[in-house]
Amino acid sequence: MSDKQIIKPQPISGFPEWLPEQKLVEERLLRIIRREFERFGFTPIETPAVERKEILTAKGIVEKEIYALSRLAAGEGEDPSTEMALHFDLTVPLARYVSQHNSQLSFQFRRYQIQKVWRGERPQAGRFREFYQCDIDIVGNGSLSALNDAEIPCVIHSIFSQIGIGRFVIRINNRKVLQGLLEIHGVPQDRYQAALRAIDSLEKIGEEKVANELISDAGMAADRARALLELLTTAPDLDALRRMDGSETLRRGVDELSEVAAGLRALGMPDDVWRIDLTIARGLDYYTGTVYETQLVDNPEIGSICSGGRYDDLASNYTRQNLPGVGISIGLTRLLSRLFDAGLLKPGAQTPATVLVTTMDRRFLADYLALASELRRAGIDTEVYTEPKRLGDQLKYADRKGFRVAVVAGDSEFAENSLTVKDLASGAQMRIPRENLVEAVSVLVR
Amino acid sequence: MSDKQIIKPQPISGFPEWLPEQKLVEERLLRIIRREFERFGFTPIETPAVERKEILTAKGIVEKEIYALSRLAAGEGEDPSTEMALHFDLTVPLARYVSQHNSQLSFQFRRYQIQKVWRGERPQAGRFREFYQCDIDIVGNGSLSALNDAEIPCVIHSIFSQIGIGRFVIRINNRKVLQGLLEIHGVPQDRYQAALRAIDSLEKIGEEKVANELISDAGMAADRARALLELLTTAPDLDALRRMDGSETLRRGVDELSEVAAGLRALGMPDDVWRIDLTIARGLDYYTGTVYETQLVDNPEIGSICSGGRYDDLASNYTRQNLPGVGISIGLTRLLSRLFDAGLLKPGAQTPATVLVTTMDRRFLADYLALASELRRAGIDTEVYTEPKRLGDQLKYADRKGFRVAVVAGDSEFAENSLTVKDLASGAQMRIPRENLVEAVSVLVR
Repeated sequence: MSDKQIIKPQPISGFPEWLPEQKLVEERLLRIIRREFERFGFTPIETPAVERKEILTAKGIVEKEIYALSRLAAGEGEDPSTEMALHFDLTVPLARYVSQHNSQLSFQFRRYQIQKVWRGERPQAGRFREFYQCDIDIVGNGSLSALNDAEIPCVIHSIFSQIGIGRFVIRINNRKVLQGLLEIHGVPQDRYQAALRAIDSLEKIGEEKVANELISDAGMAADRARALLELLTTAPDLDALRRMDGSETLRRGVDELSEVAAGLRALGMPDDVWRIDLTIARGLDYYTGTVYETQLVDNPEIGSICSGGRYDDLASNYTRQNLPGVGISIGLTRLLSRLFDAGLLKPGAQTPATVLVTTMDRRFLADYLALASELRRAGIDTEVYTEPKRLGDQLKYADRKGFRVAVVAGDSEFAENSLTVKDLASGAQMRIPRENLVEAVSVLVR
Repeated sequence: MSDKQIIKPQPISGFPEWLPEQKLVEERLLRIIRREFERFGFTPIETPAVERKEILTAKGIVEKEIYALSRLAAGEGEDPSTEMALHFDLTVPLARYVSQHNSQLSFQFRRYQIQKVWRGERPQAGRFREFYQCDIDIVGNGSLSALNDAEIPCVIHSIFSQIGIGRFVIRINNRKVLQGLLEIHGVPQDRYQAALRAIDSLEKIGEEKVANELISDAGMAADRARALLELLTTAPDLDALRRMDGSETLRRGVDELSEVAAGLRALGMPDDVWRIDLTIARGLDYYTGTVYETQLVDNPEIGSICSGGRYDDLASNYTRQNLPGVGISIGLTRLLSRLFDAGLLKPGAQTPATVLVTTMDRRFLADYLALASELRRAGIDTEVYTEPKRLGDQLKYADRKGFRVAVVAGDSEFAENSLTVKDLASGAQMRIPRENLVEAVSVLVR
């Protein structure tokens, strides 16, 4: 065996892989996210990791970021017409899914989708080439009321309250309001994108530089650029905005924003977890109404932890039906990585089990196994130590892995029909009657 | 818009995609599987979908079944040395993971892994090119007691009892027993694989043909082939096997099998869900001790729903450490597809939510939203109907999607501070005081 060729495994840059104690934290988050998505009536779907190339490239995405598939060695009967590539987001697959299965779905279609996506980016700190996205979207058939735009932040609120990473605020705006204000401030329509891009970078580069960009890139006069920025950065007054003349788009945007705000209040959203913020633009061309961004109040350096918005037509590349929608996405891998780095989430135990049944005397193996079965039947996740090692080594293993409780028993315990139960955090241990096992352990792990 | 080019989405052969009512069934199974894996102390890990090519091909797998990755368009700074491909199982990634992170893991390492895998097979009925595997393995460092081999069938038992697809039996054998019997019956060592392959096909092709194969492929004399088959197909008597002379391997296999059987009894496994079956060989060269197969008693045509076994060394390609292990795998996608086909699992509702709050009068929108929030806070998954449609259409939508309860309220209800709650299965409806909402709905969905 010693002359065998060993291939030493190396990590692949951009493809993160968690250790068990980190993965257990990710699993906790995934469970909360799934639970809350379902609480609001979103149904799970899952699409294949691959799509036909023609589907993925329909939107004119950067092709070098897409990973194409081919067989390592060509097989017989290969069908070259089915060129496939890995999906780079969950929105294109949703659009394809809804178009393909249209007649079998019921609208409004509320779906959630939690899957890995792949992007062939040059790897750099904080950029991943494989990562989890957790998306929800509500897709209407022909129309979709703004009530849906109010439900989305409630889902986000439910999730992040439970994850427990400090205070957060969901900032809400409407692209029509921004466009209307650009209109009123004399920005030509072909410069809207440039202006929105500038506004979107406000937090990064500051007011002064944004003003310069609005002047140079969006062709605004200096005084109008400053007036616009003044308006955007002042606490928004929807009534005052509604009274502004000169843009039907602005009026519609303000109406939508008001409807969303009223919906949020009716849904019981606390006032301090959301606010209207006219500086939220979202880079993507895609959004046409409500837009969202979510920040941690005490850790703004983490960036947006969840963002999304409303779009007029999900699947115009794949179907002639008009499918408006609204949705939001959590980039879980990136978020988790930043929360670990910032110490806001900490890896804990290396096992989901709370109890280790030790095996100090192998004459009693059958008893140890029976104890483990009893705990498991009571819903307590349990491991049995299976190897012939000294009790001290078994307890070290229990500490290292992060079990909460060890069950210990030998001649003395079994002679009295009793057990020793050890609280591994405090080191305290107590002798209990054997029939009290489940009760005693339940108290300790509560 | 009508002159826009539409790309009509088409399914890709071999890449299954469930409708929501099917995906909800898959989710239910995934939850049971995860829950039971953790009950037995298995910790989740997840590896990237891709591995370096050199890792995947180390075992001399058929290369044409591996999907390699490349960028759709070459990017700058491409590193050609990192050739990547999609994993085709979860065992090679586990071996690589354990080798790479060895110093950070605690052994015994009990891990579960539920991920998609990809195989570039020619698609045909029941063969998938993308499918879920749900794997557990217990990996030891240098040694691993046979107690672990007894725990594995208990996990399987817990899972399939809860899924509820009828009676099943876990058939257990030991490769050493088979090899010892081949030895005793005069099969030369270089014909063991041929003999095991023949025995493995017993159920498919019958005793007569297996005898012929043992004679022609494994070089056995006709009488010894028949004697061997007689022995294998008779109810096994471990004591009689132990008394047979001429094979140390047989004796060790019988000892292991006895230890596993004793463990199963100690763990409280009911007698009717498992049995020792000397005809179980498992095709793979890989296994060296205990082997498992699981069948549905009343639907044997479904094939093995879960199989696995014990191996001497998990990762000899990637590390010089000796890592023996035992594990089992559920091929969830294939299983689910067969269970749907056989009618053993049936797709139900299109939504995880149980309650639809209808919105018959939009003057009361704020009230409807508040009702939905109240239900959600009580842990009841709820959707609000958001579009301005007639109540009849809303109730049709509720039926189609499979909600259990609809909440209805208009002028008359709100004037009396009451609500109407409709049981959608029976059609029965009742007027309740508004404050009894959660209680009334809880009774209906129980």
